[in-house]
Amino acid sequence: MSGKLTHFDADGQAHMVDVSDKDVTDRTAIATGQVIMTPETLALVTEGTAKKGDVLGVARLAGIMGAKKTSDLIPLCHPLPVTKVSLDLEPDADLPGVRITATVKTSGQTGVEMEALTAVSTAALTVYDMLKAAEKGMQIEGIKLLAKTGGKSGSYEAKP
Amino acid sequence: MSGKLTHFDADGQAHMVDVSDKDVTDRTAIATGQVIMTPETLALVTEGTAKKGDVLGVARLAGIMGAKKTSDLIPLCHPLPVTKVSLDLEPDADLPGVRITATVKTSGQTGVEMEALTAVSTAALTVYDMLKAAEKGMQIEGIKLLAKTGGKSGSYEAKP
Amino acid sequence: MSGKLTHFDADGQAHMVDVSDKDVTDRTAIATGQVIMTPETLALVTEGTAKKGDVLGVARLAGIMGAKKTSDLIPLCHPLPVTKVSLDLEPDADLPGVRITATVKTSGQTGVEMEALTAVSTAALTVYDMLKAAEKGMQIEGIKLLAKTGGKSGSYEAKP
Amino acid sequence: MSGKLTHFDADGQAHMVDVSDKDVTDRTAIATGQVIMTPETLALVTEGTAKKGDVLGVARLAGIMGAKKTSDLIPLCHPLPVTKVSLDLEPDADLPGVRITATVKTSGQTGVEMEALTAVSTAALTVYDMLKAAEKGMQIEGIKLLAKTGGKSGSYEAKP
Amino acid sequence: MSGKLTHFDADGQAHMVDVSDKDVTDRTAIATGQVIMTPETLALVTEGTAKKGDVLGVARLAGIMGAKKTSDLIPLCHPLPVTKVSLDLEPDADLPGVRITATVKTSGQTGVEMEALTAVSTAALTVYDMLKAAEKGMQIEGIKLLAKTGGKSGSYEAKP
Amino acid sequence: MSGKLTHFDADGQAHMVDVSDKDVTDRTAIATGQVIMTPETLALVTEGTAKKGDVLGVARLAGIMGAKKTSDLIPLCHPLPVTKVSLDLEPDADLPGVRITATVKTSGQTGVEMEALTAVSTAALTVYDMLKAAEKGMQIEGIKLLAKTGGKSGSYEAKP
Repeated sequence: MSGKLTHFDADGQAHMVDVSDKDVTDRTAIATGQVIMTPETLALVTEGTAKKGDVLGVARLAGIMGAKKTSDLIPLCHPLPVTKVSLDLEPDADLPGVRITATVKTSGQTGVEMEALTAVSTAALTVYDMLKAAEKGMQIEGIKLLAKTGGKSGSYEAKP
Repeated sequence: MSGKLTHFDADGQAHMVDVSDKDVTDRTAIATGQVIMTPETLALVTEGTAKKGDVLGVARLAGIMGAKKTSDLIPLCHPLPVTKVSLDLEPDADLPGVRITATVKTSGQTGVEMEALTAVSTAALTVYDMLKAAEKGMQIEGIKLLAKTGGKSGSYEAKP
Repeated sequence: MSGKLTHFDADGQAHMVDVSDKDVTDRTAIATGQVIMTPETLALVTEGTAKKGDVLGVARLAGIMGAKKTSDLIPLCHPLPVTKVSLDLEPDADLPGVRITATVKTSGQTGVEMEALTAVSTAALTVYDMLKAAEKGMQIEGIKLLAKTGGKSGSYEAKP
Repeated sequence: MSGKLTHFDADGQAHMVDVSDKDVTDRTAIATGQVIMTPETLALVTEGTAKKGDVLGVARLAGIMGAKKTSDLIPLCHPLPVTKVSLDLEPDADLPGVRITATVKTSGQTGVEMEALTAVSTAALTVYDMLKAAEKGMQIEGIKLLAKTGGKSGSYEAKP
Repeated sequence: MSGKLTHFDADGQAHMVDVSDKDVTDRTAIATGQVIMTPETLALVTEGTAKKGDVLGVARLAGIMGAKKTSDLIPLCHPLPVTKVSLDLEPDADLPGVRITATVKTSGQTGVEMEALTAVSTAALTVYDMLKAAEKGMQIEGIKLLAKTGGKSGSYEAKP
Repeated sequence: MSGKLTHFDADGQAHMVDVSDKDVTDRTAIATGQVIMTPETLALVTEGTAKKGDVLGVARLAGIMGAKKTSDLIPLCHPLPVTKVSLDLEPDADLPGVRITATVKTSGQTGVEMEALTAVSTAALTVYDMLKAAEKGMQIEGIKLLAKTGGKSGSYEAKP
């Protein structure tokens, strides 16, 4: 672990780090998170997806669009043109709740960890919004980076 | 708990609910969440805030600005002019990590739960972004609604 | 028909018209439009909606979100908080193609005609985007205002 | 015609297609569309352009700015930095109305068809907005892709 | 003059001030500023406006649209629906340069000073952008509030 | 000085210039500006920064985020992914006021002068916003380009 917080300069002032000398490489990031709810609320999701009221479809789209807004939301994030965004939303009776995974790719000078995490967060918030008429006590849990590849710092994989 | 998902019409199609007949009332929502990290990373936050590199100040501002983008991020959310947004970010050695609380107010026809939750999420993502050079394994946990007031459905308070 | 173009001042300079003395009234607008395609492309839509690849669901959501961006897209449009947006997308073998109808409501000082037309346009562009791998020759036709209510100029209904 | 809708994965879930292996090539797209109006309304445009109230100048600018918002409006569209946007708006007494043509260029991994179509749509909506005080019955017609070059799928030209 | 910086709470943390108890009143703000350039560059503006290349028309539109983005640009600014925006851009041989004045109105709980100042700034930046191929040494000067009305703090008029 | 305003075509119509044949080179721009205020107001800034109420920290962040919005604000500006943004805000008792300097970098086909100027403008407006409760008569002065490098037109340095 490095103690260097790159988003601050030598005087401790926030800045957007200079990445102009970094190589343009292919970069991927995968993030995950869950929305925890009661079994009754989860039943609304699983029935709805099959028949009417596609909660997961709406949340998936929100996550994809959220990934594109990352540099607008996170103050010191570099803007970069993502080349792939996909989200997987799985109802999981064991949580009970919805498990969200996002994969983002780019060819660029900085990584896409924040884009993947923002995609998961936005999808999770949208799941909450779609279901809050049924349950206000839902919780968003375990948003974290699962893996990344590319860039000078190389690959990262979360410990299981 | 109601089984009615208001964001879908009778045919199960997503729509932005008609709130034009709802009363304009004062509405408040409070949401919370945590970013969990190692004690070493947390030390960077607490030292930085005092001396140089104000992680929490940047995240607080991101959360406030994020609240204003809620209806842009959440597909079926009504746009509404928030009249107050404040965020509290507390380093907590017991987590260890940063505890985030957001309070949002409006006078309008819909509640501001999503604005408060979006403020917390955006601040949490920003904390992650500022610190990820030191630790990639941080996790965002426990994003939930603490309380709301106003509107037809009345007040809500999360169980402790 | 009035010859007065209100978006220009006495010198012919564009401005955002002063509506501060207008009454806050309930206002509704309904707009429509079509995306014309071959029967083969339309078959992809109708089969996809039932089984996999929900073109119309994605376009509906894009239309709802597009309505919220109207004042950002149309230079002299007043920003206003819409209180309802719904879109209806119907496959129509007689076109052949997809028929789009959008209904938008607000309580405000200006009408929501532009919001309804923008919702239809955005949904139509999204239908094109989702299907362009199959057919590049699709056309967007007949975008127009069907009806409006509210405001000083009163109700309007398109001639059949 | 291909039956493959690339915006859906094998399970029929919407995603933003992975274009990271596509070549960066020069890409151009030209789109067109019309706003149909009465001869009286068209006269307001043609007189205004010459003397005061530059409807077409405002709509041209809105179209250019609209092209830059394409990936924000169309859910599964890749963000890409356009390198040229130009719009041509011609009053046409034969329609009667305004004929709009947009040309967009980029060097990138995906085409700019949607940017050109969005530019035309936004300009057409703005023409409507500027003139709606005079005529609410205007219609937007014939929005389509005229030609594209670049990319693996090669050139396309609309049939006359 | 008050020493109270309302954008900070008692602990010195930035927040968006609670205005929910403020009255909804009509509010107006007028701001001004100049872009200073050589007489040769100014000649390009004045000739262009008359004949071709409408620098001031483009800048006026940018200023109007900029006013609508104020709460997106200024972190602690409340979002509010402006009810009027107009800009006046006058070539002035005595500067030499372009004199910009913006007037903004709303009915709301906070003032529109920032909207008027943002409109002037955005228009000034656009003038610079349009003319920078001819002169890079232009300067933006004297951006200030001329007058405001409405709200608890009452009217303000700049000293001449 | 060239008399050619590249943002207009041969007919004087505004367009976004075609830069697709320009080389991708490293480009830098540095811009500056000041916010002039009374010594009493400046004292609030300098005390606040040290103890509580970090006016300059908020303005710095607003400037960084503003740089990322440049192509959204300035109609004919090309979108481009900035690779570095930093702002320096110095209280200066001689003004008296705050001196702002912004440095922006990219690797691209157009320069980042407008990004640097927009960063300064947005930071200056934010300083005004944070301090306007104490003094409404502040003025924003001297926004100009200090230097640029890269691109066909080469380097530029403002005369002292």
